[in-house]
Amino acid sequence: MRIVAAKDLLKANDQLAAENRHFLAARQIFCVNLVGSPGCGKTTLLEGLFRHLDGRLSPGVIEGDIAGQIDAERMERLGVPVVQINTEGMCHLDANMIAAAWDGFTDADLDLLIIENVGNLVCTAGYDLGEHLRVVVLSVAEGDDKLIKYPAIFQRSNALVITKCDLLAHTNFAVPRARGDMRRLAPEAQVFEVASLHDQGMASLADWLVRQRQSFLSATGDN
Amino acid sequence: MRIVAAKDLLKANDQLAAENRHFLAARQIFCVNLVGSPGCGKTTLLEGLFRHLDGRLSPGVIEGDIAGQIDAERMERLGVPVVQINTEGMCHLDANMIAAAWDGFTDADLDLLIIENVGNLVCTAGYDLGEHLRVVVLSVAEGDDKLIKYPAIFQRSNALVITKCDLLAHTNFAVPRARGDMRRLAPEAQVFEVASLHDQGMASLADWLVRQRQSFLSATGDN
Repeated sequence: MRIVAAKDLLKANDQLAAENRHFLAARQIFCVNLVGSPGCGKTTLLEGLFRHLDGRLSPGVIEGDIAGQIDAERMERLGVPVVQINTEGMCHLDANMIAAAWDGFTDADLDLLIIENVGNLVCTAGYDLGEHLRVVVLSVAEGDDKLIKYPAIFQRSNALVITKCDLLAHTNFAVPRARGDMRRLAPEAQVFEVASLHDQGMASLADWLVRQRQSFLSATGDN
Repeated sequence: MRIVAAKDLLKANDQLAAENRHFLAARQIFCVNLVGSPGCGKTTLLEGLFRHLDGRLSPGVIEGDIAGQIDAERMERLGVPVVQINTEGMCHLDANMIAAAWDGFTDADLDLLIIENVGNLVCTAGYDLGEHLRVVVLSVAEGDDKLIKYPAIFQRSNALVITKCDLLAHTNFAVPRARGDMRRLAPEAQVFEVASLHDQGMASLADWLVRQRQSFLSATGDN
């Protein structure tokens, strides 16, 4: 009898993820894994963010969805190279899917690869994709108790982006509570407050991302 | 070598779920599996709903969460018998957990058992818990494209509750689009529009639930 422990499958994913990270770093491509609940505003955040990059970075996007290509079409409308992964029921992307999707970018000259993961605040937490930075998105409409209820994904993120802040007055979301919980779960993480549809907070997020890529290049010794 | 196919594990869950369904029906307890994204408003919906039952039903709740007991404490404050399941990382409840949690209700005289599943629009779709009715919750803040992007969970639900309708004016959510997609995915399903915090739409949802339990009792031949 052969027993495959779940932790060994995760180890295999970690190995593939390390290869992805090395592959991308060798090409000076900074990779961000964007996670969050369904409808937290990941795609709208990207649309706003890309407008503020002002040509400082050339982004490409991998869109992870159970079904459909709605988000990929939104990226195409911005002229951003995009590859859609349909997981057909699977609740998260894994490192193997990213390696396979990479072939879709052969003609593109990228220096930023953003992976928009499947909308899921649980399962995406356990899978390293080979990213250099993980950013978790939480909308104020979801409530400020989410960090306590789904701690793993926040613990493992380098930044928290609080979205839909234009709705703050209409909700009982307390930004100080979310900030406090994030400080406890991930003391090093940056926290941003944005309203993507109203173009609020996007410039500082874009500036931060550009700086993060510069640090990444310095650290990998290519700049 | 012994190979366990995932579909056989699901079959085992289905068998346990059928036992749960029979066990509850024999006790005239109507069971509802409440699913939706993190932060879609499941717990707030229950709080509003219970106020409108007006003693017509005696509810109990099983709260499924990765960690913590925030939601169970909210139920206790309403005087509703509640059992908290902490999945410790697992992204959905399964039929076995429900059977185990049942022991927590030995002293309660229930005729409605509501299972508030882990916040997850993907993984909860595949697991029958033994419920008699599945209700999916979608907040207008999540966007009206969620039915297309996460079809399975909507297809397998008996009702869709559109929550946070007080935020409609501040979002680009189109109720007709969501209703149309739901009609295509689950033609028999009821659709409700509510604003739980503003007590809108809760009475008709409560009335419907009472009628659903009456039909259930008639169908099981106990009334």
